[in-house]
Amino acid sequence: MTKVFSGIRPSGKLHLGNYLGAIKNWIELQNKADQAIFAVVDLHGITTPYDPKNYKEQVMDVVLDYLAAGVDPKKSLLIRQSKVPQHTELGWIFNTITPVSWLDRLPNYREKVSQVEQSGEENSKSYQNNLSILAYPVLMAADILLYKSNLVPVGDDQKQHIDLTNEIGARFNHVFGEVFPNVKAHIVQGARIMSLQDPSKKMSKTGDEGIALSDEPDVIRAKFKKATTDSGKEIKFDEKEKSGISNLLTIYSLLSGKDIKKIEADYGGKGYVEFKNDLAEVVVEFLKPFQDKRRELEKDPKHVIQILERSEEEARKLAQKTLDEVKQLMGLL
Amino acid sequence: MTKVFSGIRPSGKLHLGNYLGAIKNWIELQNKADQAIFAVVDLHGITTPYDPKNYKEQVMDVVLDYLAAGVDPKKSLLIRQSKVPQHTELGWIFNTITPVSWLDRLPNYREKVSQVEQSGEENSKSYQNNLSILAYPVLMAADILLYKSNLVPVGDDQKQHIDLTNEIGARFNHVFGEVFPNVKAHIVQGARIMSLQDPSKKMSKTGDEGIALSDEPDVIRAKFKKATTDSGKEIKFDEKEKSGISNLLTIYSLLSGKDIKKIEADYGGKGYVEFKNDLAEVVVEFLKPFQDKRRELEKDPKHVIQILERSEEEARKLAQKTLDEVKQLMGLL
Repeated sequence: MTKVFSGIRPSGKLHLGNYLGAIKNWIELQNKADQAIFAVVDLHGITTPYDPKNYKEQVMDVVLDYLAAGVDPKKSLLIRQSKVPQHTELGWIFNTITPVSWLDRLPNYREKVSQVEQSGEENSKSYQNNLSILAYPVLMAADILLYKSNLVPVGDDQKQHIDLTNEIGARFNHVFGEVFPNVKAHIVQGARIMSLQDPSKKMSKTGDEGIALSDEPDVIRAKFKKATTDSGKEIKFDEKEKSGISNLLTIYSLLSGKDIKKIEADYGGKGYVEFKNDLAEVVVEFLKPFQDKRRELEKDPKHVIQILERSEEEARKLAQKTLDEVKQLMGLL
Repeated sequence: MTKVFSGIRPSGKLHLGNYLGAIKNWIELQNKADQAIFAVVDLHGITTPYDPKNYKEQVMDVVLDYLAAGVDPKKSLLIRQSKVPQHTELGWIFNTITPVSWLDRLPNYREKVSQVEQSGEENSKSYQNNLSILAYPVLMAADILLYKSNLVPVGDDQKQHIDLTNEIGARFNHVFGEVFPNVKAHIVQGARIMSLQDPSKKMSKTGDEGIALSDEPDVIRAKFKKATTDSGKEIKFDEKEKSGISNLLTIYSLLSGKDIKKIEADYGGKGYVEFKNDLAEVVVEFLKPFQDKRRELEKDPKHVIQILERSEEEARKLAQKTLDEVKQLMGLL
């Protein structure tokens, strides 16, 4: 039985880098899995400074993006973490068998602490070195193991969290009795899409740096006009010398399905402007079905809430089953 | 409005020291309070090595002891913490605004870490320096504030936890909006009852050291026979020179309602043996109504479960009301 779990922080609209680098593959997994759960982990999103006034909207943006991108409610559960209280219950239980030394050694920990320190968000002082930055990998282990998931698509930098999840699961099994499976990290082999403004950095946000999946055609056209190219005139893939053009060629190729070699040949003797204009149209075309679907969903928010609520009810049942097993073994039931 | 909350760790049967030092006063509070909640904090009891096989029984022992000692289900809610998932939900939320530095500075923290290191319990290695030892004061803040409690009876050594609770509540109010009241520690002015074997230490367990509230009369008699007295023959209150006899005089006085001076006079010229035999009868007599009530409760476990379940249902409602307010302000609802 393959049980897939993936948690997504509600940190703004998804962009082309998210889609080509990760989501595309995740959504393919739902067809092969016996159980697939996609969670908007809104209890993780509050561990660093955020704006409570826009938070609900941010969560819904992620939900809409995922549904429009292909998460199929007939095959998968799409849930908001905070609607399934079993996550924090199991999280607390895992706290009791997780040494602090397993957590503060994680490279992500120091990184996050300093991220918060440098955050310009209002109230960021109230988040400095808060306990949840230390504890969130334990909650993440609970997120995954609550559904006895055994396959988690993650980026390379998240591999250590899956290792920790397995350490915690194994310790529980050892101390109280066998409940949790071993979890495999499904390292996503997505393309690396770079920022349109600085091709040395990964595309990590929207604005001029990246294309949001929900950007209007004219916005997309304007962003590609402003995209960084290189000195020279040739349209040629060369990541070292021509990182801007190479990034644009990668996007062109992935979205059109054409070989990079073929695209280079097609644009032999043509200029950057023509190439970028054409690429903008390829992107607009590619995103059209996604955007049509998203607009359709936006028109019927009740239907979206219904999808969520049905998923969450089902998730609570699955979660309670595991939690009951856990509590029985611990003498809590 | 006075809202009382008290959490009790399920760490074995209650003894006379618990009763005279604390519970007696707590139970009096339920008559004055507008809301009184007594929680067996079974999610705190699992943070240090424990025996899962006996845990349910230990929890029920505390429940029975409290009911027999006077917790009145018509006036108070008596709940098992693990049956109200809102505790860990609010606990997680509080993690996000509590700096680690507020926690590792608590004197109790280092103490507990070394307690676990020295514990002889099986599997104690799996508990060493675990995250919940650092995090439990945050869960305790959630326990209290979940019901908007404003009066918490505690021993002197717990005062710092109430201070922390107020720091967390105030920070939440500041960052997200006013929800939580200020909490007052009700420092219990109970008598200090010492061990029967070593009168320099507080009575902290049963066995030869202390009288369990549920000890049979013959067990009580035997324990007083073995109780440490002092050299000399005089029955006289002198905590420095005659700590054993002084402790026994305190118990005698509190349970009989007689002045210590009067007891000293009554036993002028009489010996330790007679004094200790009489004291045993005073204790047996004093505990009789408690023990009758406890036996009655033991005979009808379904009724006890019903009391708990009714309380827990009511507690979940109160808790959800607060949690909804919290989530609304945080953009989670």
